[in-house]
Amino acid sequence: MSGRLFVEALACRETPRRPLWIMRQAGRYLPEYRELRARYSFEQLCASPELAAEVTLQPIRRFPLDAAIIFADLMSPLAALGVSFHFDPGPVMERPLRTADQIDALREPAPGEIAPEVPAALRLVRAELPDEVALLGFAGAPLSLAAYLVEGRGSRGGFPALRALLAREPELFDRLLARLARLSADYLIEQVRAGADAVQVFDTWAGLLSRRDWRRHVRPHLVALLERLGEAGVRRILFVNDAPHLIGDYAALPAEAIACDWRLDLAEVRTLVGPDRAVQGNLDPAILGAGPEAKRRAARELLAAVPRRGHVVNLGHGILPDAPIESVHALIETVHREADAR
Amino acid sequence: MSGRLFVEALACRETPRRPLWIMRQAGRYLPEYRELRARYSFEQLCASPELAAEVTLQPIRRFPLDAAIIFADLMSPLAALGVSFHFDPGPVMERPLRTADQIDALREPAPGEIAPEVPAALRLVRAELPDEVALLGFAGAPLSLAAYLVEGRGSRGGFPALRALLAREPELFDRLLARLARLSADYLIEQVRAGADAVQVFDTWAGLLSRRDWRRHVRPHLVALLERLGEAGVRRILFVNDAPHLIGDYAALPAEAIACDWRLDLAEVRTLVGPDRAVQGNLDPAILGAGPEAKRRAARELLAAVPRRGHVVNLGHGILPDAPIESVHALIETVHREADAR
Repeated sequence: MSGRLFVEALACRETPRRPLWIMRQAGRYLPEYRELRARYSFEQLCASPELAAEVTLQPIRRFPLDAAIIFADLMSPLAALGVSFHFDPGPVMERPLRTADQIDALREPAPGEIAPEVPAALRLVRAELPDEVALLGFAGAPLSLAAYLVEGRGSRGGFPALRALLAREPELFDRLLARLARLSADYLIEQVRAGADAVQVFDTWAGLLSRRDWRRHVRPHLVALLERLGEAGVRRILFVNDAPHLIGDYAALPAEAIACDWRLDLAEVRTLVGPDRAVQGNLDPAILGAGPEAKRRAARELLAAVPRRGHVVNLGHGILPDAPIESVHALIETVHREADAR
Repeated sequence: MSGRLFVEALACRETPRRPLWIMRQAGRYLPEYRELRARYSFEQLCASPELAAEVTLQPIRRFPLDAAIIFADLMSPLAALGVSFHFDPGPVMERPLRTADQIDALREPAPGEIAPEVPAALRLVRAELPDEVALLGFAGAPLSLAAYLVEGRGSRGGFPALRALLAREPELFDRLLARLARLSADYLIEQVRAGADAVQVFDTWAGLLSRRDWRRHVRPHLVALLERLGEAGVRRILFVNDAPHLIGDYAALPAEAIACDWRLDLAEVRTLVGPDRAVQGNLDPAILGAGPEAKRRAARELLAAVPRRGHVVNLGHGILPDAPIESVHALIETVHREADAR
């Protein structure tokens, strides 16, 4: 088994210390990533298995992290539906999905047709990754993918076109989310076949809807996705971002681990999730910008508040482009010191 | 007393029907507003008491709304601190506040120096406004103002520079919020002197921090602002946006009414707020885009779920620029029909 420390923590078994990885750990805060980006566009890095594998491995070469997450874009699998988008700098759809004709015309790709460059990159990474480091795949949750597809782009205003679609045509909204749940399930199962030890489902825009609407129109599709993965034996981390009103509901969903953003008290989430499943998170990424000492203090507080068993340490959101490397070292040292202290 | 229906509802007394107003009711969805904007910039509309008064009155001439809210920008009072910003299209600070030197150098304006065009516009509106329509002033809550000042602009990433400032220099963060609480209090008291029947404190970015950080570093300043207004006899509506993890705390703050966004169940907020204070909200503005019938259905559901006494009907966020006028009529009709049904 590769990535033993990580996999044991996901299974909520005792480990000598907590595993640690960092959301967006392959990214702009690394000079070696910026160097690659000077030569290749973001799309080029995603499209080439070799380049995506190289970017995935960059933070692993620099830091003793316990997991590598494949470098890809949340939108990558959507091309297989037959939709077109470009980046400016976030994803922009050529034609946002607003009508039944558009949604019912989405292609039903075979699993091998869904962003095949991502499983290919996973195979390359697996061949080079030290055995003790876990390899993670990922995909978007149905609502978060639908948000981009319907709105047509990222939105500060809470994706009003998506919310209007739900109000106007709830059955169509359901059809779209069911379609996206199938897509993400197929895609993630392919990623595990290609060598991923576990996958993270990103529900980046989990908090757009009221709890009532979420329970009626989002939960069933998220459950379908997670159950399908569970039946395939896939280890699941479910990341719920910026949806504190739904955390009780998310904590009850079938996943090996629940990950959450920095707004929530992870000790409380730990209680909601129950003793037999893991939690992941949730240091505020902005604290890295406050320097190594602030980082150490925050990490020590988190370790004191959340029991070790079944805790994967991470930030509560992606690391920021201006995060200083020395703050990342301070975070890693603080987490590693726990093993020495025993 | 002007704006009787509205003021009675804020006092949680029985009213023949619920009062209704719409956040951002003076805005781009109105053709007459777009016409003015073709001739004047947003800054020009805000800077001129005559133009701001005209914009404030536009929705009142078109719809039988129960309150007018003064047209101004959330940033307007900040100029009195000696900071400079422009709009692109949201506010952009010339020099974001990041250091003690900058924050301690902020001016302490006399109340009459804080955006004097806003009280001037309120006087003009009051003179023209039908007596039965309430007039509302507004200002930003300390955290939401600090978010712009420190980050330098609106931010999708949850204002990481603000969060880093809190992690790095919590005392400085506290000094800034205390300063902004005094500014907003002075500004709002001037607005009431100029004719506002009540004020709304907008905590647009209420949800940036964990509950622990919020209680330590935000709550004291928000309480100071609200208590100062209460001592001055000002009727207070506190709008808490996108902070479901804090709603229990916000519901306990001293204000005549708690307003919240569409994510929350207003019937639950009503219970948290208690029987003697009002609630305001919280229809999803995106539903207006789904057409009059969806709007009527959502409004009827809200009216059925929340008792009439002490409920001011509103959207849960600003009306969207593409909202159809006929959906606004449908909303108003549905709310007005409640009086007929009795």
